[in-house]
Amino acid sequence: MKMIQVKRALISVFHKEGIVEFATQLAEWGIEILSTGGTYEELTKNGINCVPIDEYTGQPEIFGGRVKTLHPLIHGGILSKRDDEAKQLSIKEIDLVVVNLYPFEEIVNKGIKEIDQLIEMIDIGGPTMLRAAAKNYQFCCPVIDPQDYSLILQECEQGGIQKQTRLRLALKVFAETGFYDSLIQSVLTNFSHATDEWETLPKKKSIPLVKSQELRYGENPHQNAGFYGFPDFPDKMLSRFYLDGKLHGKELSYNNIMDTHGTIKILTDLPDQAVVVIKHSVPCGAAIRSSVYESFQAAHQGDPVSIFGGIVGLKGIVDKQTAEELSKIFLEIIIAESFTEEALEILTKKKNIRLLQYHDWKNQLFSEAKQEFKKVVGGFLVQDKDHINPVSEKLEVVTQIKPDSKQLSDLRFAQTMVKHVKSNGIVIVKDQMLLGVGTGQTNRVTAAKIALDWAGDTATGAVLGSDAFFPMDDTVRLAAERGIRAIIQPGGSKRDNDSIAACNELNVTMVMTGIRHFYH
Amino acid sequence: MKMIQVKRALISVFHKEGIVEFATQLAEWGIEILSTGGTYEELTKNGINCVPIDEYTGQPEIFGGRVKTLHPLIHGGILSKRDDEAKQLSIKEIDLVVVNLYPFEEIVNKGIKEIDQLIEMIDIGGPTMLRAAAKNYQFCCPVIDPQDYSLILQECEQGGIQKQTRLRLALKVFAETGFYDSLIQSVLTNFSHATDEWETLPKKKSIPLVKSQELRYGENPHQNAGFYGFPDFPDKMLSRFYLDGKLHGKELSYNNIMDTHGTIKILTDLPDQAVVVIKHSVPCGAAIRSSVYESFQAAHQGDPVSIFGGIVGLKGIVDKQTAEELSKIFLEIIIAESFTEEALEILTKKKNIRLLQYHDWKNQLFSEAKQEFKKVVGGFLVQDKDHINPVSEKLEVVTQIKPDSKQLSDLRFAQTMVKHVKSNGIVIVKDQMLLGVGTGQTNRVTAAKIALDWAGDTATGAVLGSDAFFPMDDTVRLAAERGIRAIIQPGGSKRDNDSIAACNELNVTMVMTGIRHFYH
Repeated sequence: MKMIQVKRALISVFHKEGIVEFATQLAEWGIEILSTGGTYEELTKNGINCVPIDEYTGQPEIFGGRVKTLHPLIHGGILSKRDDEAKQLSIKEIDLVVVNLYPFEEIVNKGIKEIDQLIEMIDIGGPTMLRAAAKNYQFCCPVIDPQDYSLILQECEQGGIQKQTRLRLALKVFAETGFYDSLIQSVLTNFSHATDEWETLPKKKSIPLVKSQELRYGENPHQNAGFYGFPDFPDKMLSRFYLDGKLHGKELSYNNIMDTHGTIKILTDLPDQAVVVIKHSVPCGAAIRSSVYESFQAAHQGDPVSIFGGIVGLKGIVDKQTAEELSKIFLEIIIAESFTEEALEILTKKKNIRLLQYHDWKNQLFSEAKQEFKKVVGGFLVQDKDHINPVSEKLEVVTQIKPDSKQLSDLRFAQTMVKHVKSNGIVIVKDQMLLGVGTGQTNRVTAAKIALDWAGDTATGAVLGSDAFFPMDDTVRLAAERGIRAIIQPGGSKRDNDSIAACNELNVTMVMTGIRHFYH
Repeated sequence: MKMIQVKRALISVFHKEGIVEFATQLAEWGIEILSTGGTYEELTKNGINCVPIDEYTGQPEIFGGRVKTLHPLIHGGILSKRDDEAKQLSIKEIDLVVVNLYPFEEIVNKGIKEIDQLIEMIDIGGPTMLRAAAKNYQFCCPVIDPQDYSLILQECEQGGIQKQTRLRLALKVFAETGFYDSLIQSVLTNFSHATDEWETLPKKKSIPLVKSQELRYGENPHQNAGFYGFPDFPDKMLSRFYLDGKLHGKELSYNNIMDTHGTIKILTDLPDQAVVVIKHSVPCGAAIRSSVYESFQAAHQGDPVSIFGGIVGLKGIVDKQTAEELSKIFLEIIIAESFTEEALEILTKKKNIRLLQYHDWKNQLFSEAKQEFKKVVGGFLVQDKDHINPVSEKLEVVTQIKPDSKQLSDLRFAQTMVKHVKSNGIVIVKDQMLLGVGTGQTNRVTAAKIALDWAGDTATGAVLGSDAFFPMDDTVRLAAERGIRAIIQPGGSKRDNDSIAACNELNVTMVMTGIRHFYH
């Protein structure tokens, strides 16, 4: 049917905005209105004539309203094919279904954590009526969104509701009910401490996303963008971190959020008091010392050039002394567990810096969802995160010379940093300080050359970490030539022995971990 | 309730597998079985005593089965709180709801494209019964998956269905109904040629994903992984490209799919007959010639080292001559529009190579969904793809020397390639051939140095492309020193004039595009 003329409407809404004006107009046109509980009260209170559902069906509401609209007279009226059978059955047709759902999401956001209370908020009748009307959009029109009331009135006035409108509003219904049930499933799975489903790679799954920020633009000014939260409600929503964790400065941009993510990812693997500097998602400075002040000084020293306009992540509290150092450099974002009042006073003088405090999200941040998703042509790659912290990897010394304890801890730090560098990646480390990075290269020896060039003279006596094995001995030879004394790498090449032999020849020690850390 | 004992079960299934055995056991225990249409026939045919729904409710099925279970006796029975009210109403309680849904997905996969036929396949009664039983999991148990029949029998035998089982099966229901409606919405949106919703950054949305491949592992062997298709059904499903497009070789790995995606992304912006070589998602060779044979030869020449173990993407047909050249090198994957029979004969002799043919997906591949998603801590960044093809960018010459026509086309090619290099990115191009790449660097001049080192002597007389502006004139000076004669960059730095002055001083021509191409 091209247009439908509404003779009978069913109205049952949780959100009452605009409903009185809308129903008043429908009633004025002589449209019969069926209604339930709270909506019925609201409409009659405002002088609108309507028929209560229980009177219409002859079936009183039962179980505190759990069953009121699940009745053949209602669903026959909605799903009727308007054919001879309908005439014979003399079921009165319902042409407009105005329903919105129990606000499951709002209740969750209020912090209710009792699964049985949450379950009560799951709407059964509402989705059924909407889905039925959407299925029968040929003859019936569902309205789930109060913003569509004026359009419906306008079309009714102009002769009837258009087919294209009915289809569009039907799609809106399935978008909402799909989201609603996906959300229920995610939230209840979290609350019931059931297993994370992604771990078992389910056959199908839908991911409910809620927009929490519209961004000025994406990676570049010609790309629109938004940030969508992933429901993980038990405590503070993690998606609020980028908004509520911000103590100072303009809203985070797309690239800011991406870099913040990258910074948090690296901090996850680093010990307390460590500091990392990020630029274009690549670490350009990092150090582990006994205070964030010292760690920052060392991280900065490792790359005094790239830090300009960078992001600094500190795994600890920014105090006055650290704030004074940080304030001397142009930085985009400072991310820390927290800031002292004195530190805030110093740093908030800088208008263009963003300060992010993760204290309230700490446990969630460092133990977030175990899977990651990568959009590719045609779908999503879903995988476990690379959850192995190199600190816990078993090291096997494969050379005649053994690393000393100082080298051992530098080798572990190197492996931690190279895990977070794009592949092929090589890093140079000395005294728990990042000195050079070769990232995203198409061959390994070039990555090593870039890292060693970056480190320059400081490479002398330093250690080198590689995210994957050496296909031949050229990287070892280059490293030794530049003064590298110890190497860490997963091993696993057919030619591991060539690299080991080169180490032995050149008095370099090498350890193997067995764990590759590709990251693209 | 810790355990529930089943006295009455409702069974209405589309997929009949295992249902007879299951119902037989229930009937033997004296459980009353209510059933509908096809399921009723199947069960009675097998000698199982059951009550037809219409007899039970006193309401005959109407509108071809559209309304049969939407009745207060059914939903009162499912949603009953088993309290005094229930006793007074004398509604008979239904303790087990065994339902699976009309197979919307299967119908779509069969290629039905008529929206009204698809709409008929949307189940209304089924989801309602399942959702009601899931909501009332305290007293009732939903069973949507035939694989759970044996568990239910086992628990019934041991005294009753456990609460934890009921909750788990309830969560399974919401997972399925959430997926079902999200899928309906996606599919019908595609078919009805409605606007792509992501373009308007909707307030909420759920993404239905279907596993199409379980992968051996993810980026690294210690990460589990799978590939999930994004529903885009109108023609061939794009997610099938990685499976059905493969003509030869082992199944694609996680990293293979990722690199294939990267290759397709670059081919999208390149003209027919162009060739690109990818390694670790980074282009290490590329060229535009009048045949894929010549393009491949030139792309190979640009980086004869990194191509080892790489992925070659050809925008055209691989013929015998090209296949012979390709077969000389160890390659992971060859991606082409198609392969001639002679080419296939040559290449399929290599056991370890994968051959991917995109011919059947061509239109979809090069005009896929306009948005991309990046998972970060707490949610997803959603943005428009960087859809601007540098070929169509407006070039503004800002130097005294103007580029000649050969330089102009090299500059455009450089801008196309640098768009697909990780930021900060710099590329070197000459004669429509990629000669050097600096990728993912934390400062621009280092990216330039890496690209120029890569190009070596071939940089003399070449052009340089940059994905973002030059913060100072150091890149121009370095480039000129190495023989670069023309530069393309977006411009927009406060110090653009310094770079322009350096170009004029050093007889280099420079054009600005106004379009930044960050990519991380």
